Amino acid sequence: MIQRLALRGKTYDIHIREGLLDDCGGLIREYLGAYCASEVVLITESNVRRRYAARMGDALARARIAFWPFVLRPGERSKSSASLARLYDAFAARRLRRDGLILAFGGGVVGDLAGFAAATWMRGVRFVQIPTTLLAQVDASIGGKTAVNTRAGKNLVGAFHQPSLVLSDPALLADLPAREFRCGMAEAVKYGAVRSKRLFERLRTAPDRAALCDIIGECCAIKAGIVERDVFDTGERMILNFGHSFGHAIETLGEFRRYKHGEAVAMGMVSAAETGERLGLTARGSADALRAVLAAQGLETDCPYTPAELLPQMETDKKNSGGTLRLVLLAAPGEAFVHTLDRAALRKAMGGI
Amino acid sequence: MIQRLALRGKTYDIHIREGLLDDCGGLIREYLGAYCASEVVLITESNVRRRYAARMGDALARARIAFWPFVLRPGERSKSSASLARLYDAFAARRLRRDGLILAFGGGVVGDLAGFAAATWMRGVRFVQIPTTLLAQVDASIGGKTAVNTRAGKNLVGAFHQPSLVLSDPALLADLPAREFRCGMAEAVKYGAVRSKRLFERLRTAPDRAALCDIIGECCAIKAGIVERDVFDTGERMILNFGHSFGHAIETLGEFRRYKHGEAVAMGMVSAAETGERLGLTARGSADALRAVLAAQGLETDCPYTPAELLPQMETDKKNSGGTLRLVLLAAPGEAFVHTLDRAALRKAMGGI
Repeated sequence: MIQRLALRGKTYDIHIREGLLDDCGGLIREYLGAYCASEVVLITESNVRRRYAARMGDALARARIAFWPFVLRPGERSKSSASLARLYDAFAARRLRRDGLILAFGGGVVGDLAGFAAATWMRGVRFVQIPTTLLAQVDASIGGKTAVNTRAGKNLVGAFHQPSLVLSDPALLADLPAREFRCGMAEAVKYGAVRSKRLFERLRTAPDRAALCDIIGECCAIKAGIVERDVFDTGERMILNFGHSFGHAIETLGEFRRYKHGEAVAMGMVSAAETGERLGLTARGSADALRAVLAAQGLETDCPYTPAELLPQMETDKKNSGGTLRLVLLAAPGEAFVHTLDRAALRKAMGGI
Repeated sequence: MIQRLALRGKTYDIHIREGLLDDCGGLIREYLGAYCASEVVLITESNVRRRYAARMGDALARARIAFWPFVLRPGERSKSSASLARLYDAFAARRLRRDGLILAFGGGVVGDLAGFAAATWMRGVRFVQIPTTLLAQVDASIGGKTAVNTRAGKNLVGAFHQPSLVLSDPALLADLPAREFRCGMAEAVKYGAVRSKRLFERLRTAPDRAALCDIIGECCAIKAGIVERDVFDTGERMILNFGHSFGHAIETLGEFRRYKHGEAVAMGMVSAAETGERLGLTARGSADALRAVLAAQGLETDCPYTPAELLPQMETDKKNSGGTLRLVLLAAPGEAFVHTLDRAALRKAMGGI
C-alpha cells in the first residue's frame, strides 16, 4: 500500500507492506534518484539494532547506499538535549551536509529526535521515517511533528519538518512487546474515534495480521488528509489531540513511569468522552462505546486521578491560549470537534466542584 | 520607509525610520491586531538594555503591551546552547504558549538566538526583529535565517523561521562602535556587489546620516526580493554568500577573535573577486573596485592567510556538496552568480600549487 501526502511544496509517499524492510534500500535509492546524498546516517536504538541491523544493512548495501550508524539507548530518556548534542557532534565529525540524508529507524523516540535533528542541522536536511512500532507506524512517523525533551519539559521544543519518505513494515510488529502494541492500538482507536466510524467499529475486535496492515493504512490515510489541510496544527489537525489533554495530565501525574503514552491516551479519550457527555455535547453512550473498543484492544480505561489532580496539569498544555482551554470532544464516535471553554466550566464538567 | 516581504503563506513588513524606537509599541500593537498574545518576551543584551530599555519600555507601555525581559550578555558567546536552554527554561516558567510573541531587540546574536528559540519553542511562535546594529538592519534581521552555536560548530544548527515584523531605527546606529559600523557596511557593500551597481557606486564614499537610512532600505529591498524567490536558500539566495566562503575561513583561522564577521567578509569578497578574475569569470578590475569601495568604508581588504591555510576551512562550508565546492563569484560589480568547481581548480585559481 502506498499513500501520498501532498503538502504545498512538499509531497511524500508512505509505503506500508509486510516484508518492506528488505526493500528499504531500493525504495530510498528510488527516492534519492538524481539527488546526491553526500552522507547517509542511520539513527536507531540498540534493541532495533540487535533485531534488524543486519537486514537493514543488507537492504541498504544492495542499493549501494553507504551509511554510518548512530545508536541511541532505548527509551524516552534518549529523546534529550544531551542525545541531540551528541547527534550534532556526530554530524559535524562526519561532515553531514545539507544534501545528506537521515534515516530514522525505530519508534517514536527515534523518529522525534532524529526528525528534530534533521529539522535543525544546517537549517534542515532530508530524513526518512522507518517506524518499527505500531504507535510510530499509525501516528508519529507521519505529519512532520518532531520534538526533543528539555529541562523545560517534554515536547516543548520541536519543529515541523516533514519526512521525505515513510517506510512501514507491519511484519516488524510481531516482535513488539504486548504493552507497546496496545499503546499503538490506542492511537488507532483515536483515528477511528475522531474521523471514521467504520474504523472505530472495526476495532471492536482485536485485528489479525492481515487486518492490521489495513488498519495502519486507514490511520495513515486519515492523518495524511488532516495534515494536508492543516500542516501547522492551527485548526483541524487539533482533533488529533483527542484524549491527549487528559492523557498528558495522566502521564505527568504518573511521572511518566506509571503509564505509557498510549495507555494514558486511552484513559484520556474516555475522560474526554465523559466530559463531553456531561456538557451535553457528546452523544450518550459514546464513552461506553470507547470503553468497549479499548477493552477489546486490552487497554485500561479508568483514569485513577481526580479532576482536582488533572486540571492544573491540563492548563499547561501547549494548545491552550489566554484564560481558556481548548479540548477535543466527540459529537459521537467518528466525529470530533474542538471546544473552547474556561477553567470553571471544565472543572464542572469533569465532575469537580 | 516600509517594505513588504511576500512569501507563500507569510508576508511581513520591514519598517525603517529614524526615531522608530519610540513607536515600536504602536506598530507591534497594530500588527497583533485581533491576535491574542498571551505573553510577550523581550530578549535583549545588557548593552542594549542600558541604552534603550527605558525608551522601549515606555513605547510598549504606551501601547499597553505587557512584557517580561530576558537579558543576555553581549557578544557571540551568548549565541550558545546554554543560553538557549536558559531561554527555554524562562519560557516554561512564564508559560509562553504558541500564541505568545518574542521580541528580539539587539544585534545579530540576539536576533539569531531569539529567532531560533522562536522557531523551536512549541514548534514555532511568532517573533519581531528590532535590530540595533547596522549588520542586523541591512542583513541579519531579514529573511528568517536563525541559528545557534553548538559544540559542533558555529551556525551549524538553525532553522528558517520568518519574523512577523522587522522594526529598524537607523538613529540607534549613532551609538554603534566604529568597528561594528564598518562590519555592517561590509554587508551593505556585498548587496551592491551582488545585485546593484548603483548601490555599489554609491558606497565609494562614506554615507551621511540621511544617505544611511536610504542605503539600509536598498539593502533590505534587495534581500527581500531574493528571499521571496528562494526562501530556503537552494538557489538564488546563495549569492548572498558572496565573500562568505572565504570570510568564514578567515574568521575560523583567526579563531573568531582576530576578525569580526564583517571584516572577514570584506577580505573574503576581495579574495572571491581575485579568484574570479584568475578564473577568467570576473571582469578585470572588479577586485580593485571592491578594494576601493571597502577602503572608503574604512575596511581592510588584504587577507593575511595563504591559499593552503584557507582551502581546508572552505571545504567544511555547509553550502558544499559531494566533492565539489560552490563559490559565489562576480561577473562584475552588481552581478553575482554561483560557480561550482572542484578542489584542484579552486586551489589553482587561488594562486596555490
